[in-house]
Amino acid sequence: MHVAVYLPSDEKTKDWCQMLGDLMPDWSFEPMKTVKDPEAITYTVVWRPPTGGMTGFSNLKAVVSIGAGIDHVLADEDLPDVPIIRTVGRDLTQRMKEYVALHVLRHHRALPALQASQAKGKWEPVIVPPATGRRVGIMGLGNLGAEAAKLLATIGFDVVGWSRSPKEIEGIRTFAGKDQFGAFLNGTEILVCLLPLTEDTRGILNADTFNRLPRGASVINAARGPHLVDADLLGALASGQIAGATLDVFHVEPLPAEHPFWYHPQITVTPHVASLIDAPTGSRIIAKNLREFEKTGTVADLADGKRGY
Amino acid sequence: MHVAVYLPSDEKTKDWCQMLGDLMPDWSFEPMKTVKDPEAITYTVVWRPPTGGMTGFSNLKAVVSIGAGIDHVLADEDLPDVPIIRTVGRDLTQRMKEYVALHVLRHHRALPALQASQAKGKWEPVIVPPATGRRVGIMGLGNLGAEAAKLLATIGFDVVGWSRSPKEIEGIRTFAGKDQFGAFLNGTEILVCLLPLTEDTRGILNADTFNRLPRGASVINAARGPHLVDADLLGALASGQIAGATLDVFHVEPLPAEHPFWYHPQITVTPHVASLIDAPTGSRIIAKNLREFEKTGTVADLADGKRGY
Repeated sequence: MHVAVYLPSDEKTKDWCQMLGDLMPDWSFEPMKTVKDPEAITYTVVWRPPTGGMTGFSNLKAVVSIGAGIDHVLADEDLPDVPIIRTVGRDLTQRMKEYVALHVLRHHRALPALQASQAKGKWEPVIVPPATGRRVGIMGLGNLGAEAAKLLATIGFDVVGWSRSPKEIEGIRTFAGKDQFGAFLNGTEILVCLLPLTEDTRGILNADTFNRLPRGASVINAARGPHLVDADLLGALASGQIAGATLDVFHVEPLPAEHPFWYHPQITVTPHVASLIDAPTGSRIIAKNLREFEKTGTVADLADGKRGY
Repeated sequence: MHVAVYLPSDEKTKDWCQMLGDLMPDWSFEPMKTVKDPEAITYTVVWRPPTGGMTGFSNLKAVVSIGAGIDHVLADEDLPDVPIIRTVGRDLTQRMKEYVALHVLRHHRALPALQASQAKGKWEPVIVPPATGRRVGIMGLGNLGAEAAKLLATIGFDVVGWSRSPKEIEGIRTFAGKDQFGAFLNGTEILVCLLPLTEDTRGILNADTFNRLPRGASVINAARGPHLVDADLLGALASGQIAGATLDVFHVEPLPAEHPFWYHPQITVTPHVASLIDAPTGSRIIAKNLREFEKTGTVADLADGKRGY
């Protein structure tokens, strides 16, 4: 099989071709940019592919997204109509769980305030309730969201979850659909976004959503930048409706140097590291999925292009 | 029963007398400083009592420490020879677990480095292994240490534990005594101190201990300030042997304004908040223990004064 690989960096593209080639010596991998025989390509492995990059791949069987999300693939308006394979795995879920637990605990335990006190050389204890008295709301109950919710419940938090369609998760009170969104937000002191990015969820972290949370709530976005209306967050922080935010994803990445989030005292910026696929792990998952798809015509982590995730 | 109450702040002493009095209207509570009839006092409830403060309490039955540790009580060289009741409870254990999980995750996920990058407006991702590839060592496997170790193992960390006498905890490899201290430290990338303060453990976080850890390890002290040799930590940070530290406890508290820890870029100072007893919770536990001790002559959380914890 011939596979075309695309990542925004030529160097990383080369690395991935090399790693995948080492794992699958009977397949061939080449950078998408320099494909000579488009009709020979049966699979692509991509992160943020350029629009029209796969035009002419008339024998394409599937596209592999280097990541759990497929929004960056669907952004290619000329994308061939073939299945999209997501790259998920225990390792990715583990990393996301860690990120969510870390940042929920950090807001819960008022660490930003304690660090601000340290910067001033001030001994200023903050008394917070135990986690059992703190409600955390998880938006998005797919694999990542469900696992994060379960870990937070194990730590002791009062966890509620919200998703498009009803889900049942042991130990978590769940809400579904637009009708129950208000009930989900009501009382949620720390809101975590792990939703897929679709036309329905774009801009869901907006002023109206923030206003339904208790005053002084915190927001964590580890999903996609366009879930958040940046100006609405700045407004809610200025009014005190939102006390703090941790953001791992942005409309433009890397976050531009002039963006106000960088130096906002109530915003923690992390550089899209919540659930980074490291190349060795990612390439092993992808190699397994490619072989499985080639053999059976499907894989467990197939995305639903129409639904958008 | 007549109970004398002492906390370093007169205002807090008053608050505790009030709260305990509300919970036990058939007992009487008064500030230790202004006791008029020392022989009437049958119990004391104290935090950092002054040396000699209980002299003359000839009918004293027990001393209640407002906290899990008793080192602050034993510091009274004229302490009457009576049982000491520790104040522990699910709430305290919960808070300590949260603190340990938060700060272990923070070092594990290189958040101090990411925050330093944010302060410079730089997008600098740091790739770390998943928790399954990170060894965390817990010193002290009493109630707090054992519960923290179990939570860290649930999050996914490779957890090892060390205590004075051998302990068995499911899912944790445990080491005991001086002989196994080196084996415990070897490979521990994040070291957490939750030991009781005794003559054996005073200064245990010293240059020799740091040198047995892998280069670039992190240290978290949520036990007592005198466990740490301050100068040795500064030296280990300067040499790069230790990459970062989070300290909740100090030789002198509040940490004096001129102490170098305040402004050290690799040290996070938190103001003794790891497992704060909030007064409503603490007073409920103490009221229960006082009634139990008065009825039966003992309680589950009795300290061993000779052992020192």
